[in-house]
Amino acid sequence: MSNDIQDLKQPLAKANAGLDSVHVFAPATVANVVCGFDVLGFAVNEPGDEVVMRRTNKPGISISKITGDNGRLPMDPAKNTVSVSVEHYLKSVGRLDVGVDIELHKKMPIGSGLGSSSASTVAGLYAIKTLLGDDSNPAKLLPFAMKGEELACGHGHADNVAPALFGGFVLIRSYEPLDVVRLPHPKDLWCAIVFPDVDVPTREARQIIRNKINMKDAVTQWGNIAGLVSGLFMQDIDLIGRSMQDVLVEPVRSMLIPDFYEMRKMAMDLGAVSFGISGSGPSVFAFTRDEQTARLITGKLKQHLNSIKIGANTYVSTINDAGPRVIG
Amino acid sequence: MSNDIQDLKQPLAKANAGLDSVHVFAPATVANVVCGFDVLGFAVNEPGDEVVMRRTNKPGISISKITGDNGRLPMDPAKNTVSVSVEHYLKSVGRLDVGVDIELHKKMPIGSGLGSSSASTVAGLYAIKTLLGDDSNPAKLLPFAMKGEELACGHGHADNVAPALFGGFVLIRSYEPLDVVRLPHPKDLWCAIVFPDVDVPTREARQIIRNKINMKDAVTQWGNIAGLVSGLFMQDIDLIGRSMQDVLVEPVRSMLIPDFYEMRKMAMDLGAVSFGISGSGPSVFAFTRDEQTARLITGKLKQHLNSIKIGANTYVSTINDAGPRVIG
Repeated sequence: MSNDIQDLKQPLAKANAGLDSVHVFAPATVANVVCGFDVLGFAVNEPGDEVVMRRTNKPGISISKITGDNGRLPMDPAKNTVSVSVEHYLKSVGRLDVGVDIELHKKMPIGSGLGSSSASTVAGLYAIKTLLGDDSNPAKLLPFAMKGEELACGHGHADNVAPALFGGFVLIRSYEPLDVVRLPHPKDLWCAIVFPDVDVPTREARQIIRNKINMKDAVTQWGNIAGLVSGLFMQDIDLIGRSMQDVLVEPVRSMLIPDFYEMRKMAMDLGAVSFGISGSGPSVFAFTRDEQTARLITGKLKQHLNSIKIGANTYVSTINDAGPRVIG
Repeated sequence: MSNDIQDLKQPLAKANAGLDSVHVFAPATVANVVCGFDVLGFAVNEPGDEVVMRRTNKPGISISKITGDNGRLPMDPAKNTVSVSVEHYLKSVGRLDVGVDIELHKKMPIGSGLGSSSASTVAGLYAIKTLLGDDSNPAKLLPFAMKGEELACGHGHADNVAPALFGGFVLIRSYEPLDVVRLPHPKDLWCAIVFPDVDVPTREARQIIRNKINMKDAVTQWGNIAGLVSGLFMQDIDLIGRSMQDVLVEPVRSMLIPDFYEMRKMAMDLGAVSFGISGSGPSVFAFTRDEQTARLITGKLKQHLNSIKIGANTYVSTINDAGPRVIG
């Protein structure tokens, strides 16, 4: 990594142009993709977070506005994951002389299991990179985004930030050293996402996972992740569906999600390719072969959750292949 | 599976031509490919076993000759894996009226971890299929070959028989139901195999594997299998090499192999892409980018084993993509 960061300094020294302000979107992400616990994630086109970043006259980072968070996120730049990772970036490229103000617009619920903090962090990092006219590979932002995750979740995982940054499906083969592989996917894959409005904090969701597991179950799990990766490369949606089974994490984490197995049955009966937990929940997602089936599933699941007095946000999206993008 | 076997009866009822005798080669295989314990195997062009099968006048199966086994394999057709699986096949296709005599020529050591019994079984099944003029998909032989494995190893695993039958790299995604996926591989991948002449019975090698493992290690392992599968699809030999690490099975099984870590260091220093145990050992294998490096490695490792008073067989081969073939 250190070499990459050294490389990063080069283009910046030359780049003087840049912009005065920029408006960036970064996608929500589904991590822990069923059998891919801790190693596989993907990005969607909806929802996502937005950052508006403006240059200021004096060095340092300020946050002037956060919307959509119901007052839950810190305005203090020393505590907000977006400003903290932007500061790490500025420090690494030797540009602590730069001053910026951040507006963060949350377009998805916090604590939803949809990589909310990652989307904000990646939007912020892509904004500062764009603002400074830094045209180096966005992959170089990954370590800074992971710093943001460390602050948000207590551990610097990459399975949300990497797909938010690269788009598409991303495999984190290894953390030490960091080895990230972008995987292809069938073009006609739709994602139906349902967020049941209940609280499942990431830290607690991690703690209920068993430390010791059966070798037999692990073999089942890695047969499935190998099948899922093969299905993605082969554009074989049936194989993707058959492989998306989780015998280790889902049986535990599903307990924190209202009517998880009822929702799975409904989704599969309606024609879903697969169904699982997004991140550490409580959001759930289904893959489908078309938009219509995805909308049918989100509609029925929302109806079901409402019938048991639980609110729900729903999203229907294709896979986001671009990662973050400038929208203004 | 039962439907497949029904299908098989159809062409056989029609096929009356067939042959009087056939000589078949089937390839050795490397199963438990490092991080792919119990789910991944591949076939090589050398070594392999050969079966000569001749029609006889009265129904039933006889074995008239076995060479290369030092008298270790049973001549009794009720106990030999080749004749037992051929009989299963004949029963399933409703052709117990057929009589055949089998000659089995072992061209690789028994108990070597190179899928010796699978190669013989697959050669036998391909021979009977050819003899009867059955032109259905060879994939339909898999359940019969697994019956042979059950007799040979005490469990009907598919990770040797499937690559011996299909050729190439084969993923066993699931056993119940059986789901087998053929994977691509880089064309310029060479395999250096060294069999140290020590005894590691498959049953015992299985028993020393721990039943309970750490979730953390399992995550490392499935990150690696996902990386290996990606590398095979992407023809990325570097990624294949980085991914071929086994934190769960190799640390235990390597204890049964003389100077395993010394041999690994020698192979990697000589330019191997990866190094690991073949099957349950004691054979070891290295991937290389060319024949010369593979020959250098087998030469040096054999020299080393001989220096500690252990005999060794060595093989250098590309990946076998065809599975079994008629050679006469």
